[in-house]
Amino acid sequence: MASTRYVIGIDFGTLSARAVLVRVSDGAEIASAVSEYSHGVIDERLPDTHIPLEVDWALQDPDDYVRALEQTIPAVLAQSGVSADDVIGLGIDFTACTMMPTKRDGTPLCRLPEWRANPHAWVKLWKHHAAQPEADRINALARERGEPWLPRYGGKISSEWFFSKALQILDEAPEVYAAADRLIEAADWIVWQLTGVETRNSCTAGYKAIWSKRDGFPSNDFFRALDARFERVVDEKMSRLITPIGTRAGGLTPDMAQRIGLRPGTPVAVANVDAHVAVPACTVTRPGSLVSIMGTSTCDMLLSDKEVMIEGMCGYTQDGIVPGYLGYEAGQSCVGDGFAWFIENAVTPPYFDEAKARGVSVHQVLESYAAQLKPGQSGLLALDWWNGNRSILVDADLSAVMVGITLATTVPEMYRAWLEATAFGRRVIIESFIKGGLEVNEIIACGGLPEKNKLLMQIYADVTGLPIKVSASAQASALGSAMFGAVAAGAAAGGYDTIEEAARHMAHLKDEVFVPSPDNKAIYDVLYAEYVRLHDYFGRDQDSVIKRLKRLKLQVA
Amino acid sequence: MASTRYVIGIDFGTLSARAVLVRVSDGAEIASAVSEYSHGVIDERLPDTHIPLEVDWALQDPDDYVRALEQTIPAVLAQSGVSADDVIGLGIDFTACTMMPTKRDGTPLCRLPEWRANPHAWVKLWKHHAAQPEADRINALARERGEPWLPRYGGKISSEWFFSKALQILDEAPEVYAAADRLIEAADWIVWQLTGVETRNSCTAGYKAIWSKRDGFPSNDFFRALDARFERVVDEKMSRLITPIGTRAGGLTPDMAQRIGLRPGTPVAVANVDAHVAVPACTVTRPGSLVSIMGTSTCDMLLSDKEVMIEGMCGYTQDGIVPGYLGYEAGQSCVGDGFAWFIENAVTPPYFDEAKARGVSVHQVLESYAAQLKPGQSGLLALDWWNGNRSILVDADLSAVMVGITLATTVPEMYRAWLEATAFGRRVIIESFIKGGLEVNEIIACGGLPEKNKLLMQIYADVTGLPIKVSASAQASALGSAMFGAVAAGAAAGGYDTIEEAARHMAHLKDEVFVPSPDNKAIYDVLYAEYVRLHDYFGRDQDSVIKRLKRLKLQVA
Repeated sequence: MASTRYVIGIDFGTLSARAVLVRVSDGAEIASAVSEYSHGVIDERLPDTHIPLEVDWALQDPDDYVRALEQTIPAVLAQSGVSADDVIGLGIDFTACTMMPTKRDGTPLCRLPEWRANPHAWVKLWKHHAAQPEADRINALARERGEPWLPRYGGKISSEWFFSKALQILDEAPEVYAAADRLIEAADWIVWQLTGVETRNSCTAGYKAIWSKRDGFPSNDFFRALDARFERVVDEKMSRLITPIGTRAGGLTPDMAQRIGLRPGTPVAVANVDAHVAVPACTVTRPGSLVSIMGTSTCDMLLSDKEVMIEGMCGYTQDGIVPGYLGYEAGQSCVGDGFAWFIENAVTPPYFDEAKARGVSVHQVLESYAAQLKPGQSGLLALDWWNGNRSILVDADLSAVMVGITLATTVPEMYRAWLEATAFGRRVIIESFIKGGLEVNEIIACGGLPEKNKLLMQIYADVTGLPIKVSASAQASALGSAMFGAVAAGAAAGGYDTIEEAARHMAHLKDEVFVPSPDNKAIYDVLYAEYVRLHDYFGRDQDSVIKRLKRLKLQVA
Repeated sequence: MASTRYVIGIDFGTLSARAVLVRVSDGAEIASAVSEYSHGVIDERLPDTHIPLEVDWALQDPDDYVRALEQTIPAVLAQSGVSADDVIGLGIDFTACTMMPTKRDGTPLCRLPEWRANPHAWVKLWKHHAAQPEADRINALARERGEPWLPRYGGKISSEWFFSKALQILDEAPEVYAAADRLIEAADWIVWQLTGVETRNSCTAGYKAIWSKRDGFPSNDFFRALDARFERVVDEKMSRLITPIGTRAGGLTPDMAQRIGLRPGTPVAVANVDAHVAVPACTVTRPGSLVSIMGTSTCDMLLSDKEVMIEGMCGYTQDGIVPGYLGYEAGQSCVGDGFAWFIENAVTPPYFDEAKARGVSVHQVLESYAAQLKPGQSGLLALDWWNGNRSILVDADLSAVMVGITLATTVPEMYRAWLEATAFGRRVIIESFIKGGLEVNEIIACGGLPEKNKLLMQIYADVTGLPIKVSASAQASALGSAMFGAVAAGAAAGGYDTIEEAARHMAHLKDEVFVPSPDNKAIYDVLYAEYVRLHDYFGRDQDSVIKRLKRLKLQVA
């Protein structure tokens, strides 16, 4: 009888990487380990130097990623006592777009003494926002030329994305651009380090680098119109060979195998994006279920076999989430962050005192009071735009609003109104999907918030009218990566041949389902109509009070 | 050479009465004393009984008023060592409309054993709001009949006013109504107690009982249309003889003189309203200066010799404030109360800790931070409608709004935005006056807020573009009453013949003037335009989001 098989998934986050060792047969998470990046987010000065960074910069050190592999994988093996012989596959997911310039052999430019002092030689983290001028140029030119790919991204690409960042290197450090043989996502780079094979995964290419399976990248003609030196960026520094997720990138190199304590040749999956890889880990491999990762912000993903245009979506990609389907992505730019803002900036001392006395968090105290309120009872209504609106308005200049405040308004009432605001924002996204012709029958939630705030989940159910189920895993991304590791191994090696098959065995939901209350839904339908009025009044008018306040703020700053 | 002369003013407030002994020659406030009403505001059950009161009821005990006279006047004499012989006059002001049923000799019905258990026999305090159905009937009928007096009150009379309360007695306790020989303002009743003479002052009659010098009261025909039994309410229970303020009601009765320690025959002025009497105490006896009493709410008064229609005004009365002028009144229903709400419901622990450590109030801590912010810098804008909008929208169903909140929004920024919101509300009132054809060249402030919050005064100056001066007296109403006492005495007796003359000698302003900053004004002009957009969007549409939220709140309650 064959021994028990395991796979390892590694989730590369913003501040740390987490490895999870998972049993292939049932997805049981046997061990996990975290490695904090020693340089974290580099946003003030380059490591070991006085070289300052400008505002909106956010870099990382690629050697932190390698160290994370070297620390976490031996750690989960040691913790679990599992033998490397029984680890049949490895998968990774990463923040994106997190990209870097390297030499032809994969050596990061920033590792080379001659480039180490140049900020552009380092990894540009997803939240590096200094390429906004380049994003603006790309968007303006694309609009002007009527580029066919622009509608796929809701009419606008982000400063966070691949070509914005690449163009910034060319603009500001042409010598770095020239020295970079390759420009590559950190996700693909780490797989390259593991396997010795340079691959480019369909998920980051599709969502972050304007690639589509049918049309490829934007034309060289378009790139030339941006800058003559940029014409052949794809051919010279990237690759037109995009590997669909769910395939094997290669096997572990002997060198890397030794460094991380696994067998040489252990199959490694092509890389994935941290959000998207959570979808199969939430059991979802087919249309109809909206997967929502709920944390500081919220990311919503939906599969479909139909190609449709959805207002305000972040983008869609063939094979971007699960092979064989188009993967649609939308999101709310601020959810948990907004609640944290409220706690830090609007909650009075008695609630802190009570939390201390009860030995619980302030959130829990407020949740217990807010849960006693009926929908509509406070007379409050809010717009959840603390950090702009990602979907469906795609506008970073929007800000949050609260309406209905009276002398009788209480802290728990305001807390609940903010929770409800994010629920209404969620419903706008869902209705946009449905209006575009996609099916949404349920929400599968994962991330930190579903664990922490049951009231929030119930409000989401009541506002959307959809049942909400919650992933059984508290680390859905790492589990998803492990599942792709099992697929990279394949059934013959004790894994699975498809991600659907892996999901069937390895992904689980909690028993608890948040079922909409028809009574609450009826009241929320009324409130939602008012939310939409405010949403359109403040959000769709380019000259709305909010937009003008933002302009004035910039003027007087 | 004549000895120094003094007058006494008594300000009857909501919870207590305050007497001030003032030197006639220069208005110096020599002594003051306060008497708390032993029954305060009666809003739960009748004193010494289990008889419960309904929601929105607010009664008082008239004997508390008499006790206040008996306590405070001897107290200020004793404190100052001034002889009763040198007190040449007495004036009083009162909350209004605060009204009561009495027998023909002035005995309050509630003092009689046979009526004491009936709530309708007691004084209905200004904030008794249970006569809303009667106010609604009066307004509906007046609109239907096109009553000529309705526009004088901005198209709507209040549940707080005289005929609303009188009609409630008739509706709910016809036996009390029948037993009441007189229905009278507490202001006039206390003067009656002092002098033995029943007078009705032009100020309360004009602002609270729909009286005008030119047209008198509404017609008996109108009252009959409300209720046949109400037809002769004025003739039977009130009086058509209205005495202009600034005249003498009579002299102290021997009995009362003995009880309060003054000389029999001491001249007593006709009564006044607490807000309006502050106008001459703020040195204002002519058009052009807006007097604003700033406290929990704000009351704005303006004199003019022109009769014009101003949108959203509370009302105007010939001789209502200063004889010879029309007195216009407007107001903001929530100012200091709103800031207090913010402190209690939206300020985080560190500000309380800092206040404690510095030994100052939380307001002062927030003021010091908010003062460092530039206008427009926070990106915030608020509507100051925590308790509805008195002027110019006259709508109790409105509620407050805050726009522009981001993850970077701080407590001091929100505090300043609320201060600014009340400034913008103030400017709407001033612009309404100006649009109607009245002159506003400066603001004279009195009340608690100008003492407490200099930042607020500077913001008011910057937003309105008007200089703001502040009354030298912290008790402007009591001082104003004392001034009317000096006028009741007359120049021959060592007082003054007119309130103008009294103001010239007895009223003073502080040296400090809040002068508008042109730079701040320019930014606030931009913000004000946005405020007006929000104001009109939420406030003028009877079907606005705010109005619908209120309706939903009532439905689900």
